[in-house]
Amino acid sequence: MTAPGPGAPHGAEFVQSLERGLAVIRAFGPDRPALTLSEVARETGLSRASARRFLLTLVELGYVASDGREYRLLPSVLDLGYAYLSSLRLPDVVTPYLRDLSRAVDESTSVAVLDGSDMVYVARVATRRIMSAAIHVGTRFPAYATSMGRTLLAHLEGAVLDDYLERTPLRPLTARTITDPDALRAELAQVRERGWALVDQELEEGLRSVAAPLRDGSGAVVAAVNVSAPVRRGTVEELLEHILTPLLKAAASIEADLGRLR
Amino acid sequence: MTAPGPGAPHGAEFVQSLERGLAVIRAFGPDRPALTLSEVARETGLSRASARRFLLTLVELGYVASDGREYRLLPSVLDLGYAYLSSLRLPDVVTPYLRDLSRAVDESTSVAVLDGSDMVYVARVATRRIMSAAIHVGTRFPAYATSMGRTLLAHLEGAVLDDYLERTPLRPLTARTITDPDALRAELAQVRERGWALVDQELEEGLRSVAAPLRDGSGAVVAAVNVSAPVRRGTVEELLEHILTPLLKAAASIEADLGRLR
Repeated sequence: MTAPGPGAPHGAEFVQSLERGLAVIRAFGPDRPALTLSEVARETGLSRASARRFLLTLVELGYVASDGREYRLLPSVLDLGYAYLSSLRLPDVVTPYLRDLSRAVDESTSVAVLDGSDMVYVARVATRRIMSAAIHVGTRFPAYATSMGRTLLAHLEGAVLDDYLERTPLRPLTARTITDPDALRAELAQVRERGWALVDQELEEGLRSVAAPLRDGSGAVVAAVNVSAPVRRGTVEELLEHILTPLLKAAASIEADLGRLR
Repeated sequence: MTAPGPGAPHGAEFVQSLERGLAVIRAFGPDRPALTLSEVARETGLSRASARRFLLTLVELGYVASDGREYRLLPSVLDLGYAYLSSLRLPDVVTPYLRDLSRAVDESTSVAVLDGSDMVYVARVATRRIMSAAIHVGTRFPAYATSMGRTLLAHLEGAVLDDYLERTPLRPLTARTITDPDALRAELAQVRERGWALVDQELEEGLRSVAAPLRDGSGAVVAAVNVSAPVRRGTVEELLEHILTPLLKAAASIEADLGRLR
């Protein structure tokens, strides 16, 4: 998350109730589908009385349900994310291309954008589950360890990339993750030059991914498209031989469409 | 949306700032990807000063970006919907089955839950775009005009269904939409009895869909799974012959998994 946590300094007009209410929504998650009042208070750092007010408000607004003891999110919460997705023309434009690409190479394909230090999925056509974690639209991973993230980082302006490297700890997610900033810079330079990024088991063991940039009509890189494949598919060379041409063709077709949208 | 609009009566502990902040997020949408301050004020019914405070707060929290004149949602908004999706085990459980079903019948497959008067997509594997509107996880349609919605309505308790029919105007979405409450009740009784629902161009011209219920380990219908197909695929009889058995098999496999989860 790029949102500052509670306690971060705020402007004079900052509406703290909104920050707290959104924190209550985000308190729920994969390991916490149902929370008691005490658990919400603990997760958010709010007092019980305060957590209770936000939960009751969310119940009244139809975002949360309660059985008297535990609280759960309701599907209306999706409307908030949907407001973002539907405001973005990108998913609608790219999904047919992802579908065709996914069929052509028989692997999962995705499109992601950069948000803070993370890459975030905004469209995805999955052929099978290859990650230990399920990937939804909205799933985020550290940009430095993913092929789409590296593609997006590779096209940042110098000062913005410096800032990213300044504030982002490069933690090893597998034994192969590049964690040295200079090595990452060299890799990003290569990605920019050759026009695609390969990540070989740096995000998760057993998973490879190849990504290409997507430019809008002005030439700015606005997103990245990838194909991901399990290592049992073969060697890196075999993977590239199989998917690189279809991936770059799909990227070119999407870019032609994105150019028309402007 | 099931959330009450501004002006609905609220409890004493209601946090109006949270309601207003969420309304600002929801002011953005397909036709409104970028909004000025005045437009946000108009969409939400807030004063300009108030709309400005909420927008600045959302900017500070990383949910909204501004170029000084217009505001846009940022991908962090997806985290809110993601909190719901990831709190639901359903999408993770069903997606592999949807993928297999989609491959078997070469059509798009989805899973939806009921939320107020709407059915809401919580998982989807699309093979091609057949609707005039793009469907994302989070997309909602009136339950009465869709096969998954009817499947879910068919298994409501009598009083809950009465309440649904009481408060839901059955508007014609195409010339074929069932809009008579008694006709809908008869159709729902049939859906309940035979175990699946067929909707033939009642939501959109040219689109058919067949759905089956998904029960959890306690036997309660918690979701519905469907296959949708363009009419050019053939007659209704041909469609049913092609997809009904794979659909019902997929539903049974998903139910076995859902039962194990309890």
